Amino acid sequence: MALIVQKYGGTSVDGPERVKNVARRVVETRRAGHQVVVVVSAPGDTTDRLIAMAKEISPNPPARELDMLLATGEQMSIALLAMAIQDLGEPVISLTGPQVGILTDGVHTKARILEVNCTRLRRELEAGKIVIVAGFQGATPDNEITTLGRGGSDTTAVALAAALKADLCQIYTDVDGVYTADPRVVPEARKLSCISYDEMLELASLGAKVLQARSVEFAKLHKVVLEVRSSFNNNEGTIVKEVQDMEKAMVVTGVAGDRNVARIAIYDVPDRPGIARALFEALAKENINVDMIVQSAMRDGINDIAFTVARDDLAKAVEVTERVKEQIGASAVAYDDKVAKVSIVGAGMITNPGVAAGMFACLAEEGINIHMISTSEIKVSCIIDEEHLTRAMQALHKWFRLDQEA
Amino acid sequence: MALIVQKYGGTSVDGPERVKNVARRVVETRRAGHQVVVVVSAPGDTTDRLIAMAKEISPNPPARELDMLLATGEQMSIALLAMAIQDLGEPVISLTGPQVGILTDGVHTKARILEVNCTRLRRELEAGKIVIVAGFQGATPDNEITTLGRGGSDTTAVALAAALKADLCQIYTDVDGVYTADPRVVPEARKLSCISYDEMLELASLGAKVLQARSVEFAKLHKVVLEVRSSFNNNEGTIVKEVQDMEKAMVVTGVAGDRNVARIAIYDVPDRPGIARALFEALAKENINVDMIVQSAMRDGINDIAFTVARDDLAKAVEVTERVKEQIGASAVAYDDKVAKVSIVGAGMITNPGVAAGMFACLAEEGINIHMISTSEIKVSCIIDEEHLTRAMQALHKWFRLDQEA
Repeated sequence: MALIVQKYGGTSVDGPERVKNVARRVVETRRAGHQVVVVVSAPGDTTDRLIAMAKEISPNPPARELDMLLATGEQMSIALLAMAIQDLGEPVISLTGPQVGILTDGVHTKARILEVNCTRLRRELEAGKIVIVAGFQGATPDNEITTLGRGGSDTTAVALAAALKADLCQIYTDVDGVYTADPRVVPEARKLSCISYDEMLELASLGAKVLQARSVEFAKLHKVVLEVRSSFNNNEGTIVKEVQDMEKAMVVTGVAGDRNVARIAIYDVPDRPGIARALFEALAKENINVDMIVQSAMRDGINDIAFTVARDDLAKAVEVTERVKEQIGASAVAYDDKVAKVSIVGAGMITNPGVAAGMFACLAEEGINIHMISTSEIKVSCIIDEEHLTRAMQALHKWFRLDQEA
Repeated sequence: MALIVQKYGGTSVDGPERVKNVARRVVETRRAGHQVVVVVSAPGDTTDRLIAMAKEISPNPPARELDMLLATGEQMSIALLAMAIQDLGEPVISLTGPQVGILTDGVHTKARILEVNCTRLRRELEAGKIVIVAGFQGATPDNEITTLGRGGSDTTAVALAAALKADLCQIYTDVDGVYTADPRVVPEARKLSCISYDEMLELASLGAKVLQARSVEFAKLHKVVLEVRSSFNNNEGTIVKEVQDMEKAMVVTGVAGDRNVARIAIYDVPDRPGIARALFEALAKENINVDMIVQSAMRDGINDIAFTVARDDLAKAVEVTERVKEQIGASAVAYDDKVAKVSIVGAGMITNPGVAAGMFACLAEEGINIHMISTSEIKVSCIIDEEHLTRAMQALHKWFRLDQEA
């Protein structure tokens, strides 16, 4: 008997037939002799609909009340799924994030999990029940309802799997697994049977929407074995785990593209200690995630700083940057939201120098100009004009022979 | 400075414009210098929609999960209303039933309030905030989410007013106040400026839908002064309170009709002690409310028993009665769901004998047959064929001159 955490995304529970379909899968797993904890997201476009309702009331709804509103979406899903499972004759109970004991900090709409209290979960599992948990939500120690931000349900699932020391955490979604590239963009993309946490982490951060980076980070930290698979068929998925045999790792595992990128530049920044800190602290205070940062010394004592943020955060980020510009005496702020990020990821890069050079060569052959570059041990990312993204991904996929089995 | 509890029903918060309208009313009250606690229901037909969703999943959804689902309706309302009030510049916070500390028993979908913990409420009020509370819901001591049954938001409002010792509890609805009869049925009906708890209680139990009987009972017990008024205009409403001067009380205050009635009869019941008890205990155990009961000794040692229940409960009640029939050796069970209840209510009846006789005379003149009669100190109810209900209400309204000021 294994303890399995399953997570079903919003499309998997959109409408009564799909809810019943998920119920059948869960009951099958239970009847195979396993203990099952199920994490569900809000049905279909519920979260977007709720946000639209809020915007009709107020252009800038307070984050606390937005969380109060958004938390209802998952609460609907857990109740409906529990009903469907009960209808199939298995004992079941649904629990909201606050009920299950998912303790978070108080950063509304982007809360982080501090602790998972498993007392109630274990009690219900020991009573032989399937436990359905609302993803994406938790409560502060003061019992304020919080949400974990987009994709938070993945994080909920991994956090529960870690806290319960589950044998496996299955992430059910509308794709079959993790591919070498988005198959809608690169038709030759192949499904990977296994990928390391680090590679998955880079792919997720780089815009592969199949898993949230946060949840992969969490899984890596707590050594939770993930399986990404489809809730619409029985195809084998992709296992995400610690890959021991680095020697055998592919040089490049995947290509990712991300259009949710905007670039901001601040010009003629005095080259004094603490200047970059002033800027990025101000951005952090507004909860704006900065992705790539490039600082270039153009002339003596004067720098240009360029960085990227998610497009949703662009307006706020520009506002903050303008404010900091005045304080530090920089000359101008510019931004561009017609850019995109293309990346290659592979654990084998560590032991195979020259991969980055290959990427630049490939893009140069395609005549695609590179605006910013950022590298880590296992990935290389380039900011390019958005209009070239598809072509860049296809060219890189072919260049690194990702369409062929290793 | 007074402490006012306001309750807004589902039609008052149906759509963004109406939510904003309620927000303006609440803010007006606050700016007039009062402390305000607001109780809201789920928007419009949300509760019905959620029940329909549940029925699509399971013909008989478990009550606990139904509560989990239904509680989301009010949670949406409080979040949206809080956003609208914040947008008008007043400090505000929304709280779910569990958050506010509304402790109930564990009878899901029909829970009763055990206790209201005011600590959080008082803290938020003292911080100068308008507090928005989700009606209709609470939590058991084990933190299970419960709902109070239809009209439960009125009960929430009165319970909060009682616990906070509020100066006034305003029930905002889509009618101007309490009328001598339903104006849609009796066009001559007049709005009452004041009515006693007991009269209101009888009217509410008798099918006047403006207030739930439970909430009036609660208000009477805790001496909470109620005002029933419309959220769509500024007309004065109807005050419900202890009426001291009984001498001046009108003989008949109002006429009520109720179609949500079904009649069950059990024939040839042996006349032994404990027989009625067996039947009504079995019904109570299924949470079926029995309204009128008539026992008639037809022959020596054999009785017929007839009683009425709400139509929703008919199927279950017949099932229970059939079971009891076998146990006690009665001959047959019959039922009729084409009946209705017409009632007259008035505190002055106590000191004015002959009112019941007047009612029977009026119905006789109209040629309307009476199936069952039930009386209390301040009301007389008759079960008649449903098809005659409107005519009976109009005739009684005229007979007791309710269209004329006292």
